[in-house]
Amino acid sequence: MAVISPSRRLRRTPFSDGVEAAGVKAYTIYNRMLLPTVFESVEADYRHLKDHVQVWDVSVERQVELRGPDAGRLMQMLTPRDLRRMLPGQCYYVPIVDETGGMLNDPVAVKLSEDRWWISIADSDLLLWVKGIANGYRLDVLVDEPDVSPLAIQGPKAEELVSRVFGERIRDIRFFRFDMFQFEGYDLAIARSGYSKQGGFEIYVPDSAIGMPLWNALFDAGEDLQVRAGCPNGIERIEGGLMSYGNDMTDDNTPHECGLGRFCDTQTAIGCIGRDALLRVSKEGPVQQIRPIAIHGEPVPTCDRPWPLRAGGKRVGQITSAAWSPDFKTNVSIGMVRMTHWDPGTDLEVETLDGMRRATVQKAFWL
Amino acid sequence: MAVISPSRRLRRTPFSDGVEAAGVKAYTIYNRMLLPTVFESVEADYRHLKDHVQVWDVSVERQVELRGPDAGRLMQMLTPRDLRRMLPGQCYYVPIVDETGGMLNDPVAVKLSEDRWWISIADSDLLLWVKGIANGYRLDVLVDEPDVSPLAIQGPKAEELVSRVFGERIRDIRFFRFDMFQFEGYDLAIARSGYSKQGGFEIYVPDSAIGMPLWNALFDAGEDLQVRAGCPNGIERIEGGLMSYGNDMTDDNTPHECGLGRFCDTQTAIGCIGRDALLRVSKEGPVQQIRPIAIHGEPVPTCDRPWPLRAGGKRVGQITSAAWSPDFKTNVSIGMVRMTHWDPGTDLEVETLDGMRRATVQKAFWL
Repeated sequence: MAVISPSRRLRRTPFSDGVEAAGVKAYTIYNRMLLPTVFESVEADYRHLKDHVQVWDVSVERQVELRGPDAGRLMQMLTPRDLRRMLPGQCYYVPIVDETGGMLNDPVAVKLSEDRWWISIADSDLLLWVKGIANGYRLDVLVDEPDVSPLAIQGPKAEELVSRVFGERIRDIRFFRFDMFQFEGYDLAIARSGYSKQGGFEIYVPDSAIGMPLWNALFDAGEDLQVRAGCPNGIERIEGGLMSYGNDMTDDNTPHECGLGRFCDTQTAIGCIGRDALLRVSKEGPVQQIRPIAIHGEPVPTCDRPWPLRAGGKRVGQITSAAWSPDFKTNVSIGMVRMTHWDPGTDLEVETLDGMRRATVQKAFWL
Repeated sequence: MAVISPSRRLRRTPFSDGVEAAGVKAYTIYNRMLLPTVFESVEADYRHLKDHVQVWDVSVERQVELRGPDAGRLMQMLTPRDLRRMLPGQCYYVPIVDETGGMLNDPVAVKLSEDRWWISIADSDLLLWVKGIANGYRLDVLVDEPDVSPLAIQGPKAEELVSRVFGERIRDIRFFRFDMFQFEGYDLAIARSGYSKQGGFEIYVPDSAIGMPLWNALFDAGEDLQVRAGCPNGIERIEGGLMSYGNDMTDDNTPHECGLGRFCDTQTAIGCIGRDALLRVSKEGPVQQIRPIAIHGEPVPTCDRPWPLRAGGKRVGQITSAAWSPDFKTNVSIGMVRMTHWDPGTDLEVETLDGMRRATVQKAFWL
């Protein structure tokens, strides 16, 4: 277990003081920023997330803001998802692709108004791609990273907690919608969304100055709900089939390989930069795809590099995320499998760091 | 001291097995990849670097490869440094700027041939900016990240060590030039360069498969030179005034603010995307600039966030890198200071995490 050398380059967040006071034990680095990964233990954090409510510092979901008359046009250039019917107040999960159809990011697009969008990004400097495209196509749009840091409230008691701070109107927000709320004189967008399957909200905190005041307000309001600091959980997100860009997919993969074909309206997404490349893929289908895979036997070690998947000695894919699930009593994992071996029930072998294991392709993620 | 949660997203390198076997104690994450920061201790590593020779896994200096008829044109669009006289076999330190003149990266450009370049990058996904520009301007150029991982040999005995593995011809390479050498049937570009002031080479390892064989060959050849695994050293690089992108400068800063005006030929760098913005800056000069600053008193704590610089209570800049120097018996640091207070000898106050300290602007870095 190596430690992190702190430096300004690995950016702190508006909530770092709270995260440290809560006893964070480990981090990952995500968009050159600190993202907590463990508080008590991954297993204890998992149990608590499923039973109560947690406050997550997900500032690392940096925003790329598009502002100006060409903002909507630019947004459509970035993704094969058809955005024509999207309304202000909606959030869309949007695969972002390059000219070859390779995934550059899998963010959530937040439509604030017709000429103003946020792209709440996964781990890559999407800002640079968007700025390059805007410049190259001479679009009338301003592209930057504002001082906006998402704070997620996740778990079965999330709605109760958030309503205590922001009022009952919070309960009316539908999934992947947002509405505006007030805190200390600021307008905050709050969406029903988040990187878990336990339900909850993401608060887009629009100024670092109110980071800790909001953090503290949530903890003060939730003591009897057993609120505590948490973070995206390595077990829960695999059970739920929430992919991680950079782990389960890279710019080598098309959205179809990632099982995101339902977010690709390639025929009608006119202007999308990767459209030509994806038209072919959407007709023929991918030759490999993301699958839930159960790995049998004892808990697996940490998956810090791709584990080859084999059938009869031949390589047929790889596992990129894996963890022991206390609830499902098996190792849950996410893998990319070739079409010859991706049917549910197919038995495979996984070359883990601890040695070969038996594994089985599942029909669905563990929910 | 928090630990890192390993995952595939934080990429291992072709030399990670060697780094681990050598007892790495801490890492940073750089371009979503592991970069060692400590082996014995920062101070002991520093002493050894200045006295002997070290092998550094700097795979994190990923390459952006430009290939095709428009490669040279694209390269000039990225930087205000005039590249017309650059020859194959040369390396140029090139500030990369956006349309506002803001620094996007400060890499080394390696000209392999007229239509093939590598950009050996600092910590930002420069690939995405370059791909976006190439796409937007419809240039005939292929842009990607090849499987090339630099391995640096640094320290006073570097030339002796590298010559034992690659032959005497290595001694003829001049500073910031490279030549081609053979290893296990591969052609390797080896440049006289590196992120220290102790001299040495950077070997561009063109295939992960020969990473550990080359690592082992260097250690086998250098036992009597006391070769050991090392890494960019936090003290030595500040003494030498080697800036770190993301620490000492960001996209908020122009090259002139970073003291890189000598690498900007803004008048003649025709085609550079930030040229219009920088013409004004190069005429008027920056209002703040990087300075070496001695911080008085006991060793300072780790600088993990900007420390405000004050004069008479007013904020006049910030420190972004700082360390105690055993050789110079003072705290050495890199700061950005407003022009009213940047003259050598100016006394300032620094707000460190441990409290206020006196500091003095220096005439030159510590060499």
